[in-house]
Amino acid sequence: MPVKLAILFYTTYGTNHRMAEIADEAARATGAEVRLRKIAETAPASVVNGQEAWKAQVERMADIAEARPEDLDWADAYLFSAPTRFGAGPSQLRAFIDTLGPLWSQGKLADKAVSAMSSAQNVHGGQEATILGLYTTFLHWGSIIVAPGYTDPVLFKSGGNPYGYSHTQGAEFDEAARGAIAHQVRRLVKMAEKLAA
Amino acid sequence: MPVKLAILFYTTYGTNHRMAEIADEAARATGAEVRLRKIAETAPASVVNGQEAWKAQVERMADIAEARPEDLDWADAYLFSAPTRFGAGPSQLRAFIDTLGPLWSQGKLADKAVSAMSSAQNVHGGQEATILGLYTTFLHWGSIIVAPGYTDPVLFKSGGNPYGYSHTQGAEFDEAARGAIAHQVRRLVKMAEKLAA
Amino acid sequence: MPVKLAILFYTTYGTNHRMAEIADEAARATGAEVRLRKIAETAPASVVNGQEAWKAQVERMADIAEARPEDLDWADAYLFSAPTRFGAGPSQLRAFIDTLGPLWSQGKLADKAVSAMSSAQNVHGGQEATILGLYTTFLHWGSIIVAPGYTDPVLFKSGGNPYGYSHTQGAEFDEAARGAIAHQVRRLVKMAEKLAA
Amino acid sequence: MPVKLAILFYTTYGTNHRMAEIADEAARATGAEVRLRKIAETAPASVVNGQEAWKAQVERMADIAEARPEDLDWADAYLFSAPTRFGAGPSQLRAFIDTLGPLWSQGKLADKAVSAMSSAQNVHGGQEATILGLYTTFLHWGSIIVAPGYTDPVLFKSGGNPYGYSHTQGAEFDEAARGAIAHQVRRLVKMAEKLAA
Repeated sequence: MPVKLAILFYTTYGTNHRMAEIADEAARATGAEVRLRKIAETAPASVVNGQEAWKAQVERMADIAEARPEDLDWADAYLFSAPTRFGAGPSQLRAFIDTLGPLWSQGKLADKAVSAMSSAQNVHGGQEATILGLYTTFLHWGSIIVAPGYTDPVLFKSGGNPYGYSHTQGAEFDEAARGAIAHQVRRLVKMAEKLAA
Repeated sequence: MPVKLAILFYTTYGTNHRMAEIADEAARATGAEVRLRKIAETAPASVVNGQEAWKAQVERMADIAEARPEDLDWADAYLFSAPTRFGAGPSQLRAFIDTLGPLWSQGKLADKAVSAMSSAQNVHGGQEATILGLYTTFLHWGSIIVAPGYTDPVLFKSGGNPYGYSHTQGAEFDEAARGAIAHQVRRLVKMAEKLAA
Repeated sequence: MPVKLAILFYTTYGTNHRMAEIADEAARATGAEVRLRKIAETAPASVVNGQEAWKAQVERMADIAEARPEDLDWADAYLFSAPTRFGAGPSQLRAFIDTLGPLWSQGKLADKAVSAMSSAQNVHGGQEATILGLYTTFLHWGSIIVAPGYTDPVLFKSGGNPYGYSHTQGAEFDEAARGAIAHQVRRLVKMAEKLAA
Repeated sequence: MPVKLAILFYTTYGTNHRMAEIADEAARATGAEVRLRKIAETAPASVVNGQEAWKAQVERMADIAEARPEDLDWADAYLFSAPTRFGAGPSQLRAFIDTLGPLWSQGKLADKAVSAMSSAQNVHGGQEATILGLYTTFLHWGSIIVAPGYTDPVLFKSGGNPYGYSHTQGAEFDEAARGAIAHQVRRLVKMAEKLAA
């Protein structure tokens, strides 16, 4: 049976959307069944619409379904992708996470393989801290953390964040970036397959 | 000139409200000027009103003003108090923090003395991780972190969390608990006084 | 084939030795092949011998082999147990970890299932931070983090640290403590079995 | 009275030695009294001498005094600089820290202003995690954490690590790097001056 993977991303201007798409493509190529889901926006519409780039990104994602708790129940593995907000995940993502209490208390988040990616405005802008903070949350769920470490040479070319792929806002998604994302999600799928067996 | 202290708390059932009140009283006794502020609720009214204990707490806080970014601009020192949500601050608090970009980019959060407290359902339920995660955010602001460490004997009696006072939900606020909170906020005010001189 | 588990502990006065023994017994009961190993002491003999309790503990461990890098190469899964030193693992453990560069660069630490336990003098004395700090290191190795989360009711009775079992120095190893340790190691073995399949 | 600053660094091949020297020069220019100290090597002489580059660095530091606990007692402020070892400080530094129990229990590490810098082989190689892990330790001491945040434009040019300056091994110490280090230490001295007043 193919691994069921939920890719959940939050984005304001599109960086993490792009990262999620690259992961989606690489995961599908492994034969995994994938749900690509956007985290619901919680900022007031007036704020979003007041910024052209933000509004445009919302429109670009119009056809992507919003993440729901049942997606996490359905999946064998989760890949989260979100920018930093002062060294932590954005409140939109935390708001979604805060709705997972009922699933958690039934043990339905336990034993899932999980991995995370992030981005920041600066090279060292909180990417490590953001991913590690998400992993702390996943440990509460009883999830199994599957990070890339240095398990492939491409990671040394893409900045070498062993916790998860890290993007610097505005940088190109070159071959190393795409390769690092693809490696991370393939590794996640492989481990999820073993864990679900 | 007295230190200006903003005490900002988020609570669902009242634990962190009580912690904030104890801190408020101890801070005023030092002569500090205090703004006690609740973090705005972002959960839908239908969810809040569907739980008696949550709704009752909202009513108990009706007279407390909501925290606004300008409170952080005004203050010399910040004390945050919030429960854990899977090892991180609640999304309500993160939503407030995410509105601080404009203040941050003007450097108005820099050089403030800051400290944090937390609570969880379990004794080791993420209190350390939640406080440390908030401190990571405050480092982005250029705030000065003033934690209690083990700078007073009362800390050994109250559980000894050197990062900030930690409560276990449902436990009494006994003398050690009140003493630890009072010590933490007095220490914060003292350091803020020096930093603002 | 049985899972090969390395239990590696550092102790000064015996707390983490006891934790490791409880884990050892529970792991063997699952059929796992276990190597119980002490982390080598690096403090000068004059310091160790100057403290009766420390010296006595060294004698109690005389028959336990010291951990070597090849134990990590051999094993499918690792369980680490060590007290906190100001919110991080003790230097003895870090010294052992720092010798693992050659194994790491050959990828021999990757894909292993790993879990950790800790203890401190105080209830909230850095146990969470110490375990999370070790997990950060294991992510560099490409290890797979298997923490208890809240996957068994016994965890709520034993203090509820979702990152790994946490002991307060001097407390008894009661049924809840032993149960929490046993659950953590059994879960680790179970996941390691799947990952090694 | 001038601020008394202890700059404590550990290095294998010289990167953090260079960082410490840049900080030393910038600190002296403020009028601070500085003790530049190397952390004692704990690796066996046979290992050190077996690597030409390591041995050469040891010789280059022959005239620098080793850090002793009393340097921390003497100083008003501490700047630590050390490379990452799998996302944490090197065992040499942790070994020094582990000797500080007696000073800590007398409260002599409390109220000191402290900051940290790090380096890694990769761009995202654990620099954030290493500095944050050190700050966790300093919170145990009751130290006051003074990180750069984004309090100067130079930080955006030097990689923008708000927790402390981060170097990628082998990169040049260009104007932005030197400026970021100088800003961090000047800010530390300024805050220490206020705290010691």
